[in-house]
Amino acid sequence: MAQTNASKKLINSVESCVDECLEGLVAVNPGLRLLEGHRVVVRSDIQELVKSGKVTLVCGGGSGHEPAHAGYVGPGMLSAAVAGAVFTSPPPHSILAAIRTVGKNNQAGVLVIIKNYTGDRLNFGLAVERAKAEGIKVDMVVVGEDCALTSTDKTAGRRGLCGTVFVHKIAGSLAEEGRSLEEIAVIVREAVDNMGTIGLSLAPCSVPGSGPSFKLEHDEMELGLGIHGEAGVKRMKLTNVQTAISTMLDHMTNQATKTHLELVKGDAIGLIVNNLGGTSILELNIVAKEAISYLENKGLAVERVYCGSFMTALEMAGISLTVLKLNEVLRDCLDSPTVAPGWSKPMLPKGQRLRATPIPLPTTESSHGDKIDVSVGETVDKDYGNLLFEIIENVCKSLISSENRLNMLDTQAGDGDCGTTVTRGAQAILKKLGDKSSPGLPVTNPYSLTLALATIVETDMGGSSGALYSLFLTSAAQCLQTKISSSSWIQALNNGIAAIQRYGGAEPGDRTMLDALYGASEVLNDKNRSSLSNVELFRQAVQAAEKGAEDTAKMAAKAGRASYVNPDNLTQPDPGAISVAVWFKAILDKLV
Amino acid sequence: MAQTNASKKLINSVESCVDECLEGLVAVNPGLRLLEGHRVVVRSDIQELVKSGKVTLVCGGGSGHEPAHAGYVGPGMLSAAVAGAVFTSPPPHSILAAIRTVGKNNQAGVLVIIKNYTGDRLNFGLAVERAKAEGIKVDMVVVGEDCALTSTDKTAGRRGLCGTVFVHKIAGSLAEEGRSLEEIAVIVREAVDNMGTIGLSLAPCSVPGSGPSFKLEHDEMELGLGIHGEAGVKRMKLTNVQTAISTMLDHMTNQATKTHLELVKGDAIGLIVNNLGGTSILELNIVAKEAISYLENKGLAVERVYCGSFMTALEMAGISLTVLKLNEVLRDCLDSPTVAPGWSKPMLPKGQRLRATPIPLPTTESSHGDKIDVSVGETVDKDYGNLLFEIIENVCKSLISSENRLNMLDTQAGDGDCGTTVTRGAQAILKKLGDKSSPGLPVTNPYSLTLALATIVETDMGGSSGALYSLFLTSAAQCLQTKISSSSWIQALNNGIAAIQRYGGAEPGDRTMLDALYGASEVLNDKNRSSLSNVELFRQAVQAAEKGAEDTAKMAAKAGRASYVNPDNLTQPDPGAISVAVWFKAILDKLV
Repeated sequence: MAQTNASKKLINSVESCVDECLEGLVAVNPGLRLLEGHRVVVRSDIQELVKSGKVTLVCGGGSGHEPAHAGYVGPGMLSAAVAGAVFTSPPPHSILAAIRTVGKNNQAGVLVIIKNYTGDRLNFGLAVERAKAEGIKVDMVVVGEDCALTSTDKTAGRRGLCGTVFVHKIAGSLAEEGRSLEEIAVIVREAVDNMGTIGLSLAPCSVPGSGPSFKLEHDEMELGLGIHGEAGVKRMKLTNVQTAISTMLDHMTNQATKTHLELVKGDAIGLIVNNLGGTSILELNIVAKEAISYLENKGLAVERVYCGSFMTALEMAGISLTVLKLNEVLRDCLDSPTVAPGWSKPMLPKGQRLRATPIPLPTTESSHGDKIDVSVGETVDKDYGNLLFEIIENVCKSLISSENRLNMLDTQAGDGDCGTTVTRGAQAILKKLGDKSSPGLPVTNPYSLTLALATIVETDMGGSSGALYSLFLTSAAQCLQTKISSSSWIQALNNGIAAIQRYGGAEPGDRTMLDALYGASEVLNDKNRSSLSNVELFRQAVQAAEKGAEDTAKMAAKAGRASYVNPDNLTQPDPGAISVAVWFKAILDKLV
Repeated sequence: MAQTNASKKLINSVESCVDECLEGLVAVNPGLRLLEGHRVVVRSDIQELVKSGKVTLVCGGGSGHEPAHAGYVGPGMLSAAVAGAVFTSPPPHSILAAIRTVGKNNQAGVLVIIKNYTGDRLNFGLAVERAKAEGIKVDMVVVGEDCALTSTDKTAGRRGLCGTVFVHKIAGSLAEEGRSLEEIAVIVREAVDNMGTIGLSLAPCSVPGSGPSFKLEHDEMELGLGIHGEAGVKRMKLTNVQTAISTMLDHMTNQATKTHLELVKGDAIGLIVNNLGGTSILELNIVAKEAISYLENKGLAVERVYCGSFMTALEMAGISLTVLKLNEVLRDCLDSPTVAPGWSKPMLPKGQRLRATPIPLPTTESSHGDKIDVSVGETVDKDYGNLLFEIIENVCKSLISSENRLNMLDTQAGDGDCGTTVTRGAQAILKKLGDKSSPGLPVTNPYSLTLALATIVETDMGGSSGALYSLFLTSAAQCLQTKISSSSWIQALNNGIAAIQRYGGAEPGDRTMLDALYGASEVLNDKNRSSLSNVELFRQAVQAAEKGAEDTAKMAAKAGRASYVNPDNLTQPDPGAISVAVWFKAILDKLV
């Protein structure tokens, strides 16, 4: 299955995929252009650039490593990039076309940057020699910073990996500054000697038209593989990420290997945490955390971290880590601006460009506590408080005694736990409410009381109902800060209903608790009933709530879980609406 | 297998993965901080921001959609982001902590932006109502721009998808400008009404600790699914990307659906081509190309395109397309600067902020042709030209007659085609060389001749040998521009050898063609032999080349394909070195 899924591609054809990829890149980025007849991307202002007296930069190689290399073309980075077929070195005539474009009539010269692979060395070398023969000033830097191999016995030497992107940025910055070709080449070659990269893969990629490049079992990962799926140092059992990162960086800095990177306590370093393609960003951030921890624990100053997709291997699941020893020049190069679409940099605090100390792992700020401020809200007299106590007590008891009925109704529409949920909330309130002589809730402060109830149902009731009741109560509280009267309670109900509608997304008639609440609210807000006594008005409101609840039996469900149930199976009233009728009735019992 | 590979994760534990992801994010980006005790990321300058009199912005939701939402925190975008567990809405107390942090003592107020999911509506709604009850000025915008569903019968309505990122950018820009909460809310709600998103998946993701969220066959894709793997509109057979994009955008703009986006010819639009996680960037660029083509063919002005990972579903293979109708205000908002690490923007041509016309698909520039400039290089007399003709002819014929021997030698070390390759090159040269009376190559211009030979072997010989000989000849040519003499030919040989070493990465003694070349070169450059006649000197050089070639039989291979062969099996001389001896001898035959 991995094979087949990995082989599923959003392409039109194997043959056209590289050309179409480049066409997409320049279509997205109008600051880039393609050279006619070549897989070469250049800055759209290339003609001005050539006349500017600045060194121009050419890179390239096989495709499949996007955003490398065309994504790094732009002011502050490359002048041109040459793409080959997927994982295949580009032909010399295209490379030469790129060098000519940025090198003809350019006195400052051209620096060609390539990754250390035989094909690239030969094809780019050929083009460079041709360009020289044509009188173009050109030099070439070969990046080989792979720390995976344990010896350099093979003359082919270290592979060029994600460190090449650091080289693009450094050379790009120096060229932008107006440094000479000779200066740039010296600084860049020194940087290459001071960097190392190591990769880790969990799952292979597949070249369009082919199967996966290698096979890993479900409990295996491969340390030190190349960006085309070439074999690595060793195949290991899958570990947690902390162990995986230690293994990678231990190997990178292992003095027993000829390709190790020498790091000394106090060294300032830059780090690229590179997504090989198919790793989730969630995982990539965790990798970054572990790599920074490891390096800081070794006494290194991790001054800059770049985390993202910089040098990919199509959709390979895996990562690579690149460490570059920094000095002031290199750090300035990394920090200098560029609009090349493939480059992204960390967000530094304002005005801070230099960090001599390690990047602090999560520092914290106060969240201003999480308590409700009970100093707000008008206080009512003791009798009023006693009444509120009794109402709350009766509401809770009534709901608890309805548990079985509510659960039964809920088996038709939901998962049969409406009564249980409501009872859980009611019991939590009762527990907190305590004794009438010294209540555990602020019963003489309707505002604080309502907010306290909101907190309890949110925390202890749970589910959507808990959230909805908490919303209802929290919004209602806003009308209970001052001038407590029957009319402020009605306003509170209205506000609570509005919140349920707004956040819950249901309307009256949708077969929800709203249908009961709405019935009661209509009566309470009815101007024609203004002559009624408060108790009589409330009695009629309760009747309307009960009718609204019963009427839901005939409604189709349009919100909540019931909306996924076949309407023909919904013959009983909605348990949420019935609950509302129950607690309305319980309030009335204490008002009469 | 897809199951197991997708389930392989670079994490430490399921429980800690979200916290560690956020720790990684703030470790990489020192401009971000975590709130103590909460999964809330804020700008590190949050205290100054709150005092600045600007509206602050809070977003959030379940994790697994990185860089959403914490990656969009930063100047010009969000002030704070709240993260829940993977694909799970965050708890209200954390949301409230975020709102308090950016809203207390902030007269301008807070705008909360969420995606339209029930859990987020309730939990964020609750926190918003609490904040209001505490006197914090706050408003909430719910983004629901999914165009997948064919009706809005369900009140839950349209899901919030990648368009939320456009909202972050627009609101962030307006807040930075100093617009009021009311103004921002109006502009943002209008933007939400003018955008649409549709997704397409090729392979599922898996939540840490769980298996894949759904199953797709190897020839299937799903249109219109959500960012948690919720079902889409329909499951389709895998098509090419052009058909897939047409299907998506046809559905998005289909007037028969209630959720379609109305687009009229001439409308200016912004487009996000979003990677759902596991799609290669190669494919993503092709998707961008196809989407831009489709939209431009409908007469729309595609003014801005954002291509990358903006709102992911872990490592899901797939994409989403978001279209936003632009006006001047919205375009300026998209173009305004931000350093939030998750946002990236296209590279526009210098000084160009407004593009009233469609983005041109790849436009082109001259590559300055691909011809060698034969006007350079000194001309020799006709006799000299005739000699060069004869030498070339004899070299080619000798190589062709060695085909079988070279192939036989190569079966031991390589794939047995050395003779075939060399013969192919020789035949191509002979064909081009033509008749002595009117040669097809510039035989009286050694510089141009050598470059012409380099082009032929590069084009017609192929393989590493073709590239190496082409390099050799191209570099050699640089010593043949003026003052042609026996010494300039020797310099040319030296230069060619140096190029082979430099680009091929082999040394003498590595069992390659270099061993023959080096032998000859040592003799030709030997000061002690300066009294010898040219012919005698060359005769000794040929002997040295032959000895060098024969000696490779005793060498271990350290470069090229032979380096992967067991040394015990390498008993014959290297065919590449023998070829060199063959053509050296062929030259000598014409000099005597």
